[in-house]
Amino acid sequence: MAVGPGTLPEFFPVAGVRLGIASAGIKKPGRKDIVIFELAPESRVAGIFTRNQFCAAPVTLSRKHLSVCAPRYLLVNTGNANAGTGQQGMADAVSCCQALAEKAGVAAEAILPFSTGVIGEPLPVGKIVAALPDALESTSEVRWAEAASGIMTTDTRPKGATCQLDLDGHTVTISGISKGAGMIRPNMATMLGFIATDACIEPELLQTLASELGEGSFNRITIDGDTSTNDACMLIASGQYNGPEITATSPALPKLREALRAIYLELAHAIVRDGEGATKFVTIEVIGARDQQEALDVAYTVAHSPLVKTALYASDPNWGRILAAVGRAGVPDLDLAALEIFLGDVCLVRNGGRAEDYSEERGQAVMDGEEITIAIDLKRGDVAETVWTCDFSHDYVTINAEYRT
Amino acid sequence: MAVGPGTLPEFFPVAGVRLGIASAGIKKPGRKDIVIFELAPESRVAGIFTRNQFCAAPVTLSRKHLSVCAPRYLLVNTGNANAGTGQQGMADAVSCCQALAEKAGVAAEAILPFSTGVIGEPLPVGKIVAALPDALESTSEVRWAEAASGIMTTDTRPKGATCQLDLDGHTVTISGISKGAGMIRPNMATMLGFIATDACIEPELLQTLASELGEGSFNRITIDGDTSTNDACMLIASGQYNGPEITATSPALPKLREALRAIYLELAHAIVRDGEGATKFVTIEVIGARDQQEALDVAYTVAHSPLVKTALYASDPNWGRILAAVGRAGVPDLDLAALEIFLGDVCLVRNGGRAEDYSEERGQAVMDGEEITIAIDLKRGDVAETVWTCDFSHDYVTINAEYRT
Repeated sequence: MAVGPGTLPEFFPVAGVRLGIASAGIKKPGRKDIVIFELAPESRVAGIFTRNQFCAAPVTLSRKHLSVCAPRYLLVNTGNANAGTGQQGMADAVSCCQALAEKAGVAAEAILPFSTGVIGEPLPVGKIVAALPDALESTSEVRWAEAASGIMTTDTRPKGATCQLDLDGHTVTISGISKGAGMIRPNMATMLGFIATDACIEPELLQTLASELGEGSFNRITIDGDTSTNDACMLIASGQYNGPEITATSPALPKLREALRAIYLELAHAIVRDGEGATKFVTIEVIGARDQQEALDVAYTVAHSPLVKTALYASDPNWGRILAAVGRAGVPDLDLAALEIFLGDVCLVRNGGRAEDYSEERGQAVMDGEEITIAIDLKRGDVAETVWTCDFSHDYVTINAEYRT
Repeated sequence: MAVGPGTLPEFFPVAGVRLGIASAGIKKPGRKDIVIFELAPESRVAGIFTRNQFCAAPVTLSRKHLSVCAPRYLLVNTGNANAGTGQQGMADAVSCCQALAEKAGVAAEAILPFSTGVIGEPLPVGKIVAALPDALESTSEVRWAEAASGIMTTDTRPKGATCQLDLDGHTVTISGISKGAGMIRPNMATMLGFIATDACIEPELLQTLASELGEGSFNRITIDGDTSTNDACMLIASGQYNGPEITATSPALPKLREALRAIYLELAHAIVRDGEGATKFVTIEVIGARDQQEALDVAYTVAHSPLVKTALYASDPNWGRILAAVGRAGVPDLDLAALEIFLGDVCLVRNGGRAEDYSEERGQAVMDGEEITIAIDLKRGDVAETVWTCDFSHDYVTINAEYRT
């Protein structure tokens, strides 16, 4: 179950980024569960990681390696998160990096490891190492679609976005893939995102873009409010295009930033559209807030309310549940009489109660759609924030009650 | 679906408290949906109410009336919460109080109104007023069981607790009823609790007891994290027993407080056991915290995690989900290596990973039970807090996706 068609695009290859896929049989025999990114030597990489304090060993190790030298390989495995695995987990992550480094002839610190899957099971290092030769031999610039499938866990479909743009006469390519699909909430989730461009971007600017774009997209989606231990969203700039290095003062930066932002949003939204059991894609806009914190508090309280989410699943315009969620969001001195809540273009709440011109029919018409926007105007400031989420269905319970079995 | 037998006790009548039940047909024709408490003139009443900023009209009015004079009647209706109904909602609540006041020959301010049910629908004042004569005529001290049924909404069974104790040679009776069963979370919920004793309790002490006992019981239960607009838990002291007034310095106070605490806990736990779709009764104990806030943050983050709750539903000892929830609870500088997590008497997590002596079999054995305790020792202080919750089942989704239809 997922919202919208969600078909993969025809990926534009990114010069300097080769993808390798292999099967280690970590969880299911024959399943393609290893994906490697092979990067040209001049490549630069930046990213953001989960803020869960119990981050997995690969997250800790990737952060460390990023600070040591320029990455040459990203090593992704699914089926096992190598999280909650203590010291052995760290040793296992190091072993995988060392094995790939030897075979590829680079330093172990040039490998960034990423794992996703079950928490608390020992990482099957032997299986992963045994699959590395296949992964290395298979690298190619045209395997984005296979890589998108290779990083899936409970995802029902692969997720990708791609585009080309002209920067001062030079063609820039951007391609990316992502995976979800549960334990998704701000500050990353069981979520992996890999976005690559052949543009040459000054390192500090690259990190600024990775943080800013990740914050406004991957860190604004939530399926169930559970933040995972493993998440990462990486931005790769291979520098293989034939244009000049882009810096914070480059006239071309705004156009590049917008193109990257569109790719980030498309990949983040794709995770919500494929949220576990999702039948609705829901945009929650809070406007008229005094500051960002209260805007986010209201947006996430509504987005995480099981009663709101089950009402969305039922296509039930149960605005009382939305109002109740806003009321418990912890925003001081909310003026109920001033507040307005819209479902699509239909005003639900005004003057402290159901809007005079509201009718079940009009609310139902909006709720019957697959894509729903809930807008909440707090009428007390000029700060706005948007969060994307999905509904809460029987399938969510089924998927998560049976995940390990 | 509910946890445990949950049969009603044989209620001890409380001298000075008469209960009346009637059918107003608010939501379903013939359904007993009106309950009144008729209190002896000497009665004293204290209580706690929802902290949802968008509290319903009856909550606002009950708070106001409590501050004006001693209550003589509590008027409870189910089927309609009279919440999110704006100024009309307040006018409707006032009308109901005035109607009962006239028929009973007391001041309108001596009526405390309580409503629970659908949010945002106009209160059917006419139906309620028409049922008041029946309710008044039917008052009796022995109708606690019928009253317990009369205040139910989505509850699958009535909830009550009762006891008698000897205070310095004088018999004191305590009886109470409560209802849930969704939108339950700290700071009240769609939850109503009425506890009555024939003891004579000094007014200020009565409010202290109502606050302290409600905080440790009704404000420590959560089904889905949604705090309702209507909740109230009232403590009635009719003063009809033949003992002296109990004050903050009475030697008899500790014994009375413990008896009341047991009744409060039994009524609060009964709501969780009958939580919407509940198949497990889960106690979450956090110990070794530096302060109450971080203890509660951890307890509620685990209690509200949809992934933990669906694993509980599946009887799946998925300790990785518990660990991940603790990690995102926002407690600064948590020491993962020191932290310990227990499932019943089985240690799940130690030294940053799965406990050496843990086995799926032992975890499964605990999970297979209907009553499960998750204990989290933060190992950083001496503050402890306990929260009670239930699992997250298919039935929860079904109930809340179909509530209005």
